[in-house]
Amino acid sequence: MNDPLRLGIAGLGTVGTGVVRIIRQKADLLARRAGRPVTISAVSARSRGKERGVPLGDYAWEDDPVALARREDVDVFVELMGGHDGTAKEATEAAIAAGKDVVTANKALLAHHGHALALEAEAAGRVIRFEAAVAGGIPVIKALTEGLAGNDMTRVMGVMNGTCNYILTRMQSAGLPYEEVFQEASDLGYLEADPQLDVGGIDAAHKLSLLASIAFGTQVDFGSVQMEGIGAITIEDITHAADMGYRIKLLGVAQMTGSGLEQRMTPCLVPATSPLGQLEGGTNMVVLEGDNVEQIVLRGPGAGMGPTASAVMGDVMDIARGFRMPAFGQPAAGLKQAQPAEGGTAAPYYLRMSLTDKPGALAKVATALGDAGISINRLRQYDHSGPDAPVLIVTHKAARGDLDRAMAAMPGLGVVTNLPIALRIESV
Amino acid sequence: MNDPLRLGIAGLGTVGTGVVRIIRQKADLLARRAGRPVTISAVSARSRGKERGVPLGDYAWEDDPVALARREDVDVFVELMGGHDGTAKEATEAAIAAGKDVVTANKALLAHHGHALALEAEAAGRVIRFEAAVAGGIPVIKALTEGLAGNDMTRVMGVMNGTCNYILTRMQSAGLPYEEVFQEASDLGYLEADPQLDVGGIDAAHKLSLLASIAFGTQVDFGSVQMEGIGAITIEDITHAADMGYRIKLLGVAQMTGSGLEQRMTPCLVPATSPLGQLEGGTNMVVLEGDNVEQIVLRGPGAGMGPTASAVMGDVMDIARGFRMPAFGQPAAGLKQAQPAEGGTAAPYYLRMSLTDKPGALAKVATALGDAGISINRLRQYDHSGPDAPVLIVTHKAARGDLDRAMAAMPGLGVVTNLPIALRIESV
Repeated sequence: MNDPLRLGIAGLGTVGTGVVRIIRQKADLLARRAGRPVTISAVSARSRGKERGVPLGDYAWEDDPVALARREDVDVFVELMGGHDGTAKEATEAAIAAGKDVVTANKALLAHHGHALALEAEAAGRVIRFEAAVAGGIPVIKALTEGLAGNDMTRVMGVMNGTCNYILTRMQSAGLPYEEVFQEASDLGYLEADPQLDVGGIDAAHKLSLLASIAFGTQVDFGSVQMEGIGAITIEDITHAADMGYRIKLLGVAQMTGSGLEQRMTPCLVPATSPLGQLEGGTNMVVLEGDNVEQIVLRGPGAGMGPTASAVMGDVMDIARGFRMPAFGQPAAGLKQAQPAEGGTAAPYYLRMSLTDKPGALAKVATALGDAGISINRLRQYDHSGPDAPVLIVTHKAARGDLDRAMAAMPGLGVVTNLPIALRIESV
Repeated sequence: MNDPLRLGIAGLGTVGTGVVRIIRQKADLLARRAGRPVTISAVSARSRGKERGVPLGDYAWEDDPVALARREDVDVFVELMGGHDGTAKEATEAAIAAGKDVVTANKALLAHHGHALALEAEAAGRVIRFEAAVAGGIPVIKALTEGLAGNDMTRVMGVMNGTCNYILTRMQSAGLPYEEVFQEASDLGYLEADPQLDVGGIDAAHKLSLLASIAFGTQVDFGSVQMEGIGAITIEDITHAADMGYRIKLLGVAQMTGSGLEQRMTPCLVPATSPLGQLEGGTNMVVLEGDNVEQIVLRGPGAGMGPTASAVMGDVMDIARGFRMPAFGQPAAGLKQAQPAEGGTAAPYYLRMSLTDKPGALAKVATALGDAGISINRLRQYDHSGPDAPVLIVTHKAARGDLDRAMAAMPGLGVVTNLPIALRIESV
């Protein structure tokens, strides 16, 4: 048997504990598969005394993750602390500088510093792997970087925040308003400490920016992701969308357009019968489209101890087997700076607004849309008891710029009584 | 730039031509991703003069694939000829003996000789990779062998023959009988030269046996796959199943049971709302279940030039990147001989039969089932114009042995006027 691969694990929350458990329980299986034992030399976490349900006495303890990252007896630094600055970044850089490979589940760190870290790792001849950072247990980084390496990718899409998908599907199935389901999700512990990471789309946008970098050979550009959360989605939107054969999803889309890289993480309408439309609850789904492979759809748990630890172990096993590759699938030094797309690709849109119940109100809206070059495909005015009439419009394909112009004009018409909402209808 | 990886491609049908095209069109991209150029030294096919729509003049030509496999200027032998004996086997063995790595799309070859070839390759320090042999463009071997390497797999399932799924879903959507849709599929060129490979379940069973070997660490055991084709499925079965909320799929299932390895490739009922139930047309789907990852579902094109060539290129790129691993995810010498499960896991079954329209007929059937220890969950007798009454029964969970006993008793009851059919209802 060859030398063991020795891990230093920083962070013993759910995922870290899950990784320790797998390595303890499956020592023989992992060694057979990797051709060498996988062992843990040392661990680190905020609180040493906390009961974690797994024995840690065999491992050296470090209070300081940076010290852990530099230990002589560590080959791979496993970063499961989280946070995009501070200790996680410092320890990761220390590990690379000390000649360690890195496995991390930290999407925020990579979305903000992935390119710089990849450059550092390559200069040091080390690898960084981050399967667990995107879509939990689904081996999507592997599929994209390795399995589909013979493709020019054309589009990457995904529902990559389970909490948002839980909220949206629960609103639909239980007929409950957003606020109530948000509270439920909070009570169930589904939300991050800062809920905007989830419902604001930030967490999912982190993931999208990583997939986009790999798919299109560009430097990670999280700052250019067009981002909208799900907070403005009402139960009426969900019901009306369903009436028309759609589901509302917080959908990430990345594609290379004539004017540059388009990256969006926004609530979209997708056909109810599509795999994305059928996705219920906290499950994640990623759709990978390439010029040769056409379309691959991957679906699985986006979070949780077992699935996320499974993804971490996939990376650890790759390193144990000697698989070495640049973080984003090609040398970071050769990745082009992303040129953000202007305006983005055209699409039909779903519009929802309330109008004063006066003659001519609808005509004013229709005229404003027409003036912006947007034509109406379907329109529904719903029965109403109050003074305002809820109106839904599905447009024909419209440029984002035209749509923004039309939406900006709405308040000035004197007939729109709410903040109108516009959701893209994505062809999936 | 490092030394190129030099391919010898045997077989220039759809897939081989697709691989040549990718390597010609994406030379720069592939070199960036692999860290070295990927080139073609020589090719081989049955007919040299045939027009294939891609220039071959840059490559040496070999009439004999075995000679191709042994060429000095070939690092990887790409076997795209097909057939489980004869030249494909001989050339693959020659390649290994000559110190070449092998990439193949040949499921039949591996289902029959995979274990022996893996042993030969390991003895020679060479790798065999076969992503394209299972589920076309879906990187399922990679997901299972690498991405999920930190799991004990609990079950592997899949719809892995696009032609069968096309036939079954087309029967349902167009309301056409099997024979007619079979003829359509034949006219469209969807069927293998020997259609039993498709509709008899053989091709899909080849694939299942490869997944089972990887998932459960056993030697490929194609001979033990319980196999039933789709030829006995009627439009009535499909309609009745739909009435009850099910779809009929040619479903492969492999799982380790208390009595050994269960491998089945049989028509099954699955819930219409499940990802498998929703799978339409020629698309493939594989479901991977592991103790940590829970459930991963992969969906994509199961055949075609682009998707299959994409899978071949995934393997080629792995070799170019220096990823080296035993064919079935752990050393072949350590794979246990599979112990076929006795009887298999219990499940509810769907039964369809015709009864003589006489008092007491149904009672006789119910008694025969009861005598075999099988209890009835749902029963429907349909309106009928002819002399025989079509009867559908859904049983409670039954052991396969009990079911076989009951079905064997049916003809002797004197009231069943057709050959009754029994389809397993799989919980997915």
